[in-house]
Order: sequence, then structure tokens, then C-alpha cells
Amino acid sequence: MDLLLSAANSALLTAHDLRRDVEVGLFLLGPPDPPRFIRLVGYQLRSWQPDVRSNAALVRKALEHASRVEHETSPGIFASKASFEEALDRLGPSFVYLKEGGKDVRDLLVPADATFVLSDNQDLAPEEERAVLRRDALVVGLGPTSLHADQAISIVHNELDRRHV
Amino acid sequence: MDLLLSAANSALLTAHDLRRDVEVGLFLLGPPDPPRFIRLVGYQLRSWQPDVRSNAALVRKALEHASRVEHETSPGIFASKASFEEALDRLGPSFVYLKEGGKDVRDLLVPADATFVLSDNQDLAPEEERAVLRRDALVVGLGPTSLHADQAISIVHNELDRRHV
Repeated sequence: MDLLLSAANSALLTAHDLRRDVEVGLFLLGPPDPPRFIRLVGYQLRSWQPDVRSNAALVRKALEHASRVEHETSPGIFASKASFEEALDRLGPSFVYLKEGGKDVRDLLVPADATFVLSDNQDLAPEEERAVLRRDALVVGLGPTSLHADQAISIVHNELDRRHV
Repeated sequence: MDLLLSAANSALLTAHDLRRDVEVGLFLLGPPDPPRFIRLVGYQLRSWQPDVRSNAALVRKALEHASRVEHETSPGIFASKASFEEALDRLGPSFVYLKEGGKDVRDLLVPADATFVLSDNQDLAPEEERAVLRRDALVVGLGPTSLHADQAISIVHNELDRRHV
């Protein structure tokens, strides 16, 4: 959970602001009732904080909603029970899959409105990886070192910020 | 404290390992008994974790040591009471000052064994900035967006990793 919340903060926060043009999708497979999908919609969020502990409370509240019909459990936070493929299809339309050994992000032409897919400290399962690749994802790497998700996201944002994407 | 611990993790951790060639200096001005200086020496650390909560306990233990004589409070963790200038002089020998508007890191020739100086969500005080600049610090920026310390550190590491520095 801490790892997910750190990654979400890397995706959503700058020094003094929220990135309102970002949407984060958290896909959770942990017990007791997986799979769960939580969307954090930057321009609608109101109580997201640099402090991960207060955000943990918002995510726990979202996890109480286990219906397949998506529900807004807090402003800008949408929860549902959804498969990995369903989660991908609510994001998109184009995909970039961050994976060691992929084409260097610095050489990448970023598709419009792209969703960047990355896993936590475990790699995607083979069937998850196939689901991403079936959606024509570009496979992209960030450099020679294996990183935590939050570190990888900071590097991607920096690359996109430099291009004013 | 959370902000410092996140920054330390960005500096010290890769996906599955500790960066043993990194030394982190944390300079703390908070109550009750500032200033405090804590060094985290990568190759000597033994119980540093991705989980910031367990690291918080190590830092709190270090803060119990308020002598001006540095003491190793846990393996690889060295604590003392020290001024900002004393802290800088225990790091070095060359300095890079990360500041918005500085010369782009991608164009930077990194000095050998450089110490990267950055502040939390408040800028350095004018006298602190002068202390850094008196030590011939290069003033370096990371791109167009103001970032949190942990995000900035991830971007710097990525740049250095790409050069195998």
C-alpha cells in the first residue's frame, strides 16, 4: 500500500500543486476481495495530500466499495471491482509499458493522452503483459537501473515536462 | 520528517538494492534542539528499508544523540549537533546546488564525488545559499517544473546512472 501511495504521489504532485491533467489508475490484487481498481482524477481531487497517511485513509474508503459499478467514494476518487483488462480499457486510449530493456524514453515519441503502465516490485504476470501488448503498447525503458515505481514515474514526468507535453 | 525520509529513500534505494556508493546528509532545523545533522552512509547501512516507518525509528534514535561529537547510533547512521556550514564541510568536496532556473543537469559535467544540495519545500535561507555558493557550487536545474525533493533526487540519479557515474 505504501508503495502504491508513493507512486500515486509521484504521479499527482509537484512541489506546490497537483497535476490536474493526470489520471492515476491503481490496480490492487491483495486480499481480502481482489481485484480492485481505483481511479484518481487529478482535476477532480480535493483532499489529496503530500502526506501518504491521509491518502491511505482515502484509499481505504475507496476499497470499501466492492461493486462492479464504479462509484465516486471521495471527490475525484472512483472505485470498483474490475479485472486488469477492464481497468486498462477505462484508461488508454494509447499505452506505454515501462519495462527494463525497453526503448529509451528519451527517444520516444509520446502518443497523445497515453497511459503509462508499470508494476510494483513484482513484474507484471505473463497474461497481464500480454493484455498490455495486445493494446499496441510501446515498450519503454528509463535507463540502466531497476527502480521503484515512484522513482520511475518522476523520471517520466520530467521527460514529458521538458517537452511541455 | 516524512519528506526527509522519502528523499533519503530516493537517494539510497533502487528496486531491489541499496546504492552503496551514496552518502546522504540530513540537516534538520526542527524543534526541540536544532540544528542536527545525520549522515547515512550507504555501504555501512544494515537496516535501512523501503518502508519509511521503520526508517523513522532509526532517525528518531539518531536524534537522541545531541552531542557535537559525531556518534554512530545504528550501523551506517551518524548523528551530531552541527551547523549548516559544518555539515557541508563533512560532505563535499565539490558541490552541486539544485535550484530552479540553474543550468540544465543534462548539460552538466558532474564533478567527482559531488554533494548535491537541495532543500525541502522551503528554499534555502539566504545565508545558507551563500554558504553553498562560497564552496564553488554549480547551480543546476532539472527542468521546467518545481518538484519535491524525492522527485528531484530520482531525476538526478537517472541522469548519473545513464553516464555510469
